[in-house]
Amino acid sequence: MRILGVDPGLRRTGFGVIDSHGSRLTYVASGTIIVPSDVSLPERLKVILDNLREVVRQTQPDVAALEIVFVNTNPQSTLLLGQARGAAMCALADSGLTVHEYTALQVKKSVVGHGKAAKEQVQMMVQQLLSLEGVPAPDPADALACAICHAHTAPLGQALTGQGWRTVAARSSRSSVKGGRFRRGL
Amino acid sequence: MRILGVDPGLRRTGFGVIDSHGSRLTYVASGTIIVPSDVSLPERLKVILDNLREVVRQTQPDVAALEIVFVNTNPQSTLLLGQARGAAMCALADSGLTVHEYTALQVKKSVVGHGKAAKEQVQMMVQQLLSLEGVPAPDPADALACAICHAHTAPLGQALTGQGWRTVAARSSRSSVKGGRFRRGL
Repeated sequence: MRILGVDPGLRRTGFGVIDSHGSRLTYVASGTIIVPSDVSLPERLKVILDNLREVVRQTQPDVAALEIVFVNTNPQSTLLLGQARGAAMCALADSGLTVHEYTALQVKKSVVGHGKAAKEQVQMMVQQLLSLEGVPAPDPADALACAICHAHTAPLGQALTGQGWRTVAARSSRSSVKGGRFRRGL
Repeated sequence: MRILGVDPGLRRTGFGVIDSHGSRLTYVASGTIIVPSDVSLPERLKVILDNLREVVRQTQPDVAALEIVFVNTNPQSTLLLGQARGAAMCALADSGLTVHEYTALQVKKSVVGHGKAAKEQVQMMVQQLLSLEGVPAPDPADALACAICHAHTAPLGQALTGQGWRTVAARSSRSSVKGGRFRRGL
């Protein structure tokens, strides 16, 4: 099962792709979509939409995982984050992927072993679990952590429901990437 | 100039299309996208994305207008609304449309003449301004009001900037509409 994890944000959207064979996890790709800040909001959302679709096209994941976000005390920030998250979900759903959501607590517990882990601990554990040569940057690290969380959680869900997971093969989406870029690497 | 106004919401997303020739406004179409509530959040956003793209495909607007939303005091509602709004903007931007945003105050002033108008007044003024046979429902009325606001505001902006408006012709988008529907009519 190939899993795409996404950490949506209006400035930077992290992504990370891993393969999960039984208990073995293999790193496939990761990166950050840098969203230009000098264009209109719809254009910024379009950058997230186009680039995430392109990531799906290039990496062909079976399923996607997203962190359930922290609701900011600042309503305006919450609205902006919601819009970025909406664009990310649209990109994934538009590419034919089923999207699973996990809380920050679930992700941290799954990767570090407890829910109070600091950002740096998550980055280090992601490095270890995927045998990476370097420590991944915060955004792709969070995205990879989310993918790892799904890899650890999905088999359990499968056993409990006995129905298996609906993994829809990614359809190829449009390849036009305008007004932005996504960076590959850690 | 053909203008598509949108009033995004996770349960119901209103839309309204008008033609603006000088000071003359003509009604083209309006309706409500009914979003099913018994599916996952990504699927709900996909319903908004697909149906709004279909509205653009069928009505071929030159430009889109959206209301800048009221930020709810409930952070969870604000996040949900943000996600619906993100999906709507993605649909418009993905169809090649430039999106203009107006505050509720601007929309009400433009349609009713003052910023403290009640919902019913907006609905009645939309009916009058567009010579509609019946009173439009709240969601399409808000969407039509937003389109009217752009029709009133755009010529002024044009005169002030001297640059004209960037109106990008709508590209045809995918026609697949799954898991939801949009209702035509008032």
